[in-house]
Amino acid sequence: MTARMHYFRGRGNSQQPRWALAAAGIPYESVFLTTANDFALLRASGKLTYGQVPMLEDGELCLSQSLTIVRHCARRGNLYGVDDGEASRIDEIIDGIKDSRGSIVGYPFGDPQEACMQLAGAAERFFPAFENILKRNGSAPFAVGSALTMADVLLAELIESTQEALEATFGQQAVTQVLQPYPLLCALHTHVVALPAIKMFKASANWMPFPSGEVGRAYVLNVRTVMGR
Amino acid sequence: MTARMHYFRGRGNSQQPRWALAAAGIPYESVFLTTANDFALLRASGKLTYGQVPMLEDGELCLSQSLTIVRHCARRGNLYGVDDGEASRIDEIIDGIKDSRGSIVGYPFGDPQEACMQLAGAAERFFPAFENILKRNGSAPFAVGSALTMADVLLAELIESTQEALEATFGQQAVTQVLQPYPLLCALHTHVVALPAIKMFKASANWMPFPSGEVGRAYVLNVRTVMGR
Repeated sequence: MTARMHYFRGRGNSQQPRWALAAAGIPYESVFLTTANDFALLRASGKLTYGQVPMLEDGELCLSQSLTIVRHCARRGNLYGVDDGEASRIDEIIDGIKDSRGSIVGYPFGDPQEACMQLAGAAERFFPAFENILKRNGSAPFAVGSALTMADVLLAELIESTQEALEATFGQQAVTQVLQPYPLLCALHTHVVALPAIKMFKASANWMPFPSGEVGRAYVLNVRTVMGR
Repeated sequence: MTARMHYFRGRGNSQQPRWALAAAGIPYESVFLTTANDFALLRASGKLTYGQVPMLEDGELCLSQSLTIVRHCARRGNLYGVDDGEASRIDEIIDGIKDSRGSIVGYPFGDPQEACMQLAGAAERFFPAFENILKRNGSAPFAVGSALTMADVLLAELIESTQEALEATFGQQAVTQVLQPYPLLCALHTHVVALPAIKMFKASANWMPFPSGEVGRAYVLNVRTVMGR
């Protein structure tokens, strides 16, 4: 049975899980919440552990929490490293990304320039650490060990979302300015987006456009309608 | 080699890792940061991935991020379930606890009554979900499968910290009022704290007292001294 991702029609907290599903090669369809009643019915089904989306339905499993879905994909797709030590290093990267990514999810809900300033601040704080992880691993382009892992996939997603936010708000020059100090991160991003699985994802109906301008306004309206506020 | 937990002299973000280490039966010693220079030296060692503590040094591995340490302990102690499905359910609980626990870490830094009101709000939001998880699993006292997992350990920690915060601030009656609706969670807490490994932990030098009153003030002073602010 094809897995099903339940969420609003847009990125938000479903974006990391979508990259994870793609990289793990797990086929899935997007189920979009459109009305408050859609959400009420889904809640009444008992499938939402915390009454929240995203929720991935994968066979018997109904999984809430975006990083729970990400780790599920890492296990299913053998992207969790070759041993427990690598798994821990991957976790450390996933958890660091969580700390650095809030302004990306918040982008369509507030002032884009302010979101980008926060994002640039988070980049200044965390990207040197990620660049250093890549350098220390010494097996470019990978962050942990000598093969693709979920850490690489989420780092690539982070770089890409950062690029998109900065470009939509301040133009290409801002992208260059923020990302230039991190050649290894940029090389990792280039490697991941060239993977056939990610190319296929980007050409599919599961790929959501970056929520700037009209796309962002439609997404915010969708979220507010579904949440009834 | 005995593992080493680097942190301030207190609970904060080291509390969940400490319970995890204890439950997994991993012997460790606490290394307390006392001065700004201690912290500068630790940062200069290159062992802090994000320039932050807690950091667990376990053999070759130097792990930052509290939930990375928790998952490392879950793997080492065979507390991550019997298969991938259980592992995902455990992740879902760990990630839900993260969303509900901010006011516990913040407790000594602000107004205790306000922290407790936030905590009670988080309990009202998340504890029904946790109680429902226990009910659905149908294998009391455990949250996932039919044996102890890291999900049980962190749920027990959450209940205990909630009890301590409420009791220190509003007295025993508040504890009863907040926790009474959740008999399965309370039974799980009772089970976990009766485990020999947890009893030993509570009697050890690695057990930190709850940060109310003078204990809390000393902890905040310690943190501010080390962080140089």
